[in-house]
Amino acid sequence: MNPNKISFKNDYSEAAHPLVLEALQRDFLKQEAGYGEDSSTLRACDLIRSFCQKPNAEVHFVTGGTLANLVVTAALLQPYESVIAAASGHICVHESGAIEATGHKIHEIAHKNGKIRPSDIEEVVNLHTDEHMVRPRMVYISQTTELGTVYSRSEIESISQTCARCNLFLYLDGARLGSALASSQDSPSLPEIASLVDAFYIGGTKNGALFGEAIVLCRPNLAPHFRNNLKQRGALLAKGRALGAQFEALFTGNLFLELAKKANSAAEKLTAAIGAKGYQFAYPPMSNQIFPILPDELIKKMSDSFDFYIWNRVDSGHRTIRLVTSWATSEESIERFIEVLSA
Amino acid sequence: MNPNKISFKNDYSEAAHPLVLEALQRDFLKQEAGYGEDSSTLRACDLIRSFCQKPNAEVHFVTGGTLANLVVTAALLQPYESVIAAASGHICVHESGAIEATGHKIHEIAHKNGKIRPSDIEEVVNLHTDEHMVRPRMVYISQTTELGTVYSRSEIESISQTCARCNLFLYLDGARLGSALASSQDSPSLPEIASLVDAFYIGGTKNGALFGEAIVLCRPNLAPHFRNNLKQRGALLAKGRALGAQFEALFTGNLFLELAKKANSAAEKLTAAIGAKGYQFAYPPMSNQIFPILPDELIKKMSDSFDFYIWNRVDSGHRTIRLVTSWATSEESIERFIEVLSA
Amino acid sequence: MNPNKISFKNDYSEAAHPLVLEALQRDFLKQEAGYGEDSSTLRACDLIRSFCQKPNAEVHFVTGGTLANLVVTAALLQPYESVIAAASGHICVHESGAIEATGHKIHEIAHKNGKIRPSDIEEVVNLHTDEHMVRPRMVYISQTTELGTVYSRSEIESISQTCARCNLFLYLDGARLGSALASSQDSPSLPEIASLVDAFYIGGTKNGALFGEAIVLCRPNLAPHFRNNLKQRGALLAKGRALGAQFEALFTGNLFLELAKKANSAAEKLTAAIGAKGYQFAYPPMSNQIFPILPDELIKKMSDSFDFYIWNRVDSGHRTIRLVTSWATSEESIERFIEVLSA
Amino acid sequence: MNPNKISFKNDYSEAAHPLVLEALQRDFLKQEAGYGEDSSTLRACDLIRSFCQKPNAEVHFVTGGTLANLVVTAALLQPYESVIAAASGHICVHESGAIEATGHKIHEIAHKNGKIRPSDIEEVVNLHTDEHMVRPRMVYISQTTELGTVYSRSEIESISQTCARCNLFLYLDGARLGSALASSQDSPSLPEIASLVDAFYIGGTKNGALFGEAIVLCRPNLAPHFRNNLKQRGALLAKGRALGAQFEALFTGNLFLELAKKANSAAEKLTAAIGAKGYQFAYPPMSNQIFPILPDELIKKMSDSFDFYIWNRVDSGHRTIRLVTSWATSEESIERFIEVLSA
Repeated sequence: MNPNKISFKNDYSEAAHPLVLEALQRDFLKQEAGYGEDSSTLRACDLIRSFCQKPNAEVHFVTGGTLANLVVTAALLQPYESVIAAASGHICVHESGAIEATGHKIHEIAHKNGKIRPSDIEEVVNLHTDEHMVRPRMVYISQTTELGTVYSRSEIESISQTCARCNLFLYLDGARLGSALASSQDSPSLPEIASLVDAFYIGGTKNGALFGEAIVLCRPNLAPHFRNNLKQRGALLAKGRALGAQFEALFTGNLFLELAKKANSAAEKLTAAIGAKGYQFAYPPMSNQIFPILPDELIKKMSDSFDFYIWNRVDSGHRTIRLVTSWATSEESIERFIEVLSA
Repeated sequence: MNPNKISFKNDYSEAAHPLVLEALQRDFLKQEAGYGEDSSTLRACDLIRSFCQKPNAEVHFVTGGTLANLVVTAALLQPYESVIAAASGHICVHESGAIEATGHKIHEIAHKNGKIRPSDIEEVVNLHTDEHMVRPRMVYISQTTELGTVYSRSEIESISQTCARCNLFLYLDGARLGSALASSQDSPSLPEIASLVDAFYIGGTKNGALFGEAIVLCRPNLAPHFRNNLKQRGALLAKGRALGAQFEALFTGNLFLELAKKANSAAEKLTAAIGAKGYQFAYPPMSNQIFPILPDELIKKMSDSFDFYIWNRVDSGHRTIRLVTSWATSEESIERFIEVLSA
Repeated sequence: MNPNKISFKNDYSEAAHPLVLEALQRDFLKQEAGYGEDSSTLRACDLIRSFCQKPNAEVHFVTGGTLANLVVTAALLQPYESVIAAASGHICVHESGAIEATGHKIHEIAHKNGKIRPSDIEEVVNLHTDEHMVRPRMVYISQTTELGTVYSRSEIESISQTCARCNLFLYLDGARLGSALASSQDSPSLPEIASLVDAFYIGGTKNGALFGEAIVLCRPNLAPHFRNNLKQRGALLAKGRALGAQFEALFTGNLFLELAKKANSAAEKLTAAIGAKGYQFAYPPMSNQIFPILPDELIKKMSDSFDFYIWNRVDSGHRTIRLVTSWATSEESIERFIEVLSA
Repeated sequence: MNPNKISFKNDYSEAAHPLVLEALQRDFLKQEAGYGEDSSTLRACDLIRSFCQKPNAEVHFVTGGTLANLVVTAALLQPYESVIAAASGHICVHESGAIEATGHKIHEIAHKNGKIRPSDIEEVVNLHTDEHMVRPRMVYISQTTELGTVYSRSEIESISQTCARCNLFLYLDGARLGSALASSQDSPSLPEIASLVDAFYIGGTKNGALFGEAIVLCRPNLAPHFRNNLKQRGALLAKGRALGAQFEALFTGNLFLELAKKANSAAEKLTAAIGAKGYQFAYPPMSNQIFPILPDELIKKMSDSFDFYIWNRVDSGHRTIRLVTSWATSEESIERFIEVLSA
């Protein structure tokens, strides 16, 4: 990463929010139980249950999203059961085959701007009719999606109903759930999500934490002996307090939502400025990831001062780029970007 | 964990050493590359290669020991290959079947005080003669062992030679490697270990880090595409800087060794006091874990003020307990223990 | 299966060719070594190597195609490596997730009439660029395809060159290889296949055997310790002679090819008669599986006398059906079908 | 295998009983449904349910014992659950890690002559107390054992009660179940076994069949969607009729038991003759496998005319050998063995 450039490559370039770092320091010599049985973790679990309005939910913390995804999948499915996901889903593309490594097939289905539709889910279910085929048993969705879009409440309700009808678990990858909760879209709230899905995780890494994701199993006995599963996959952190303390900080007051709002607000400013210049977006900008389509020469110019991913080529003169903001994106960085864009 | 008791239950009860926590805070708003390509991680890798005197070694950081063990095993072995380990080994007992979950059998062999012998390794190799059986391909040892003992240089040399002769990888689980390096035993140094084994990990969690283990692959191309393996198992931390910064702190100066010495010194004082009272030890005390055999009534008394594990029953009036010290064990705690013991 | 109907449902409805059954009986009291080290198996391996003109090939027999596919895949790939296959491929659809159960992802790509193209293979390779993704390492093709089509020599040559350039193994599922070899298409011969792919299997079950597939590893040391892999997956038959004897019978003289010709010839007659009536085919008829598009009322009529699969609906009045012939399809059955069709 | 020697190496040297071979030939041109839905298989399932007096049992046929063991284990256990077995058990030694390849740990426990005891089972259960460890969930026993011994009714009753108390499935590997049923020991009958265990398989390969084992799931819904599991592991034979026909033949009249009696009777004659010479046995001779301890020079002499396995060395002048008889062992072979022994 070029230190002379401002990076919009991702939302995990900075370390962690000061309040989170402070929590990691607090009482550092106090002796606590290991493996998530410490007092911070117990409090963090209670806070999350309370925010979700699910007093009976199970909450478990792990260090990263791929771990969350693979442990939940391995815990919920029988060997011959499979997962349905958008072809753009993180588990399909960017986890080096983590789900398959636990033995499960993923059906990659079509998506619109990263979002899947009930009819495509049902089609997979209808095609799998006998014992020569896997049995679809789980739907995986990401909120926000990998393309920065946000499922509306009614979209997730509709998927949830389809899952119930088809005997499918609904699992939501919330690596960037904060940004969805904070978005101006009509996205479901935390309690609504906890009612509509069977399991999900609340991403800390990309919203203020140094690392950590909170897995929420929305009803008791969904996955018996879940801690055995965690341990077996290397996901049970010895000093679980490091996870608990961070989530306690994020869910004290409403820091989690505030940080996501900051990230979204930064993206909105970029979106407005880019839109004002007459540029289009590959996917509707809804969260802290936006995908403007820019002329090659402009991309070249922006690259001198900023780091970002080139997403793909649109036509001979244009490419889509990805810009990601975070809680730590400064006003100054945004202004500088707009300045160069307009120069 | 009872806050009114001093705990000798384990060496991960406290959070982390102040210098490590400080490193986590430093430059927290500086943007860095993710997934272990940040500047701290690069420096930490160099420091470890330098301490090991292995300029060509590959170094990778993961958040915990079980992850290290399962990723290395899955990376080094073909599906039909197996691991030889002491029946007391961490992978045999305390990882909820993590190695088998990657598809590999463990041959649990006899041990003396947690240590295995070349002859027992060879016996397993000699018994596996045809394609109806697995092919033993890796030996797993722990330094220090799970019973607090330490392999001497010549013991590991001898195992290393056996492995070379039998075409076995030698892998060393160094969850408590610091304590071994700092012990008064004639244990191999870091460069010696790096020469005698194929791969090992240096445990941070139990020696000053908040979390983190450094996997060292002692020669290039031992495990091609190792980062794919890490990613697939959920072991590639997004903010790899959190691992790099901690190991940079631990291997700047010689903090890592100093902390281990502190832990060992605390254990030595307990050992001396317990020995002076005439009590025996289940295994020779060599590191920061000791296993005194105490009368039931004494155990009961000590339990009022201290937390520790009851290991097993020895006879109708005696049990073995486990006492573990750490870099954070205070003089005061030691003195208090000796005081109550002697009261 | 309705005994009053003639079945065109598949090519494994009858037991086995009389010469194969006779071979199973021969010398049945003679004591032979187990697990494929008997004299029949040794002779059958030699015959197949000779037919393939590959004196150094390894030949292994297993009882079914799914076993062949899963053992070869597990033997050739590292955990993070993946397979590229047509979305219509048997491993994608009809093996209940057998490949994923060994830990490997399949990239399902577009196909034309069951056949894949080099450009689509390359696209997958080009998209997988870093360690967050699996590494594509094997291409799976079926000859004949699941849609009854046959790859030409030049098509497989072109795929083979792509694989070589992209460092991909090429594996051919030959469940119906006999029908391809016997087809009037310009399909590659057995020696050509053995030169163009890394591994393949010759299907016995669907071409005269009671059961059994011959895996051919086209060069030595392609998959070291392959028999360990076979044993681990339950694929090493105790009385391997039962596999060897069948393949010895099939490859003595040229029974294997003759049986396939019979099957193809029966399909050609059906194709001619159906075509003469003016009906179209969903995929070009090339082998012993044909897919005519028929009016609903005709399908209803044919169903009274014949068993076959309804493949899918084409429009409000037409559906595709699948007709499969075998070495055992009688002239009489063909004539009867044509008679009813024309009535 | 030396054709000039009579082999006592195993009980799968000969092909199959004439009635079984005849069944494979019968109606070979008759079209039947595939994958175990043919009429022979349906009749064979009924016969086995009837012999077991378990009208609600599920019966499934597979081609070999390792497949049976791995499919049942994978179907019954959750990822973090484990199997308890004698260290001499087939799954521990001779399946190239098949069970571990499905992700499950085996606890290898002590045995007496191949038989395990309730107290050793309970000890494993008692040691596995928290989520850092696997959860023992299945006990694996072999009847007859790999050392030729036979569990008595009361021994299996006692193990069964232990399993019930400890929430463990009891699974019986019946590769040589015929020999146990036919033994003069007080071994449980087929209906008794079906009442005492959760699942078992009846071995055909070693008792008259060309290949094939009948898995019996002793109660409905023990393993939902078991056929998906079979398919996924490559264990669903396309021409299932080949399995059904054999088991129909074996369980028509009481051929299965008669063949086992023949094998046992041959072993008894060998046992009597060897015992009469004053030689000891390494394990009590109870079935068709016996393990006499013979002087080296006698072993050398017998080797000139007979094939058998050298089991192990007992002392400087003696070794144990293994002699195995089958339904096909001729009177003449037995007499010849005794003659040479006595010469």
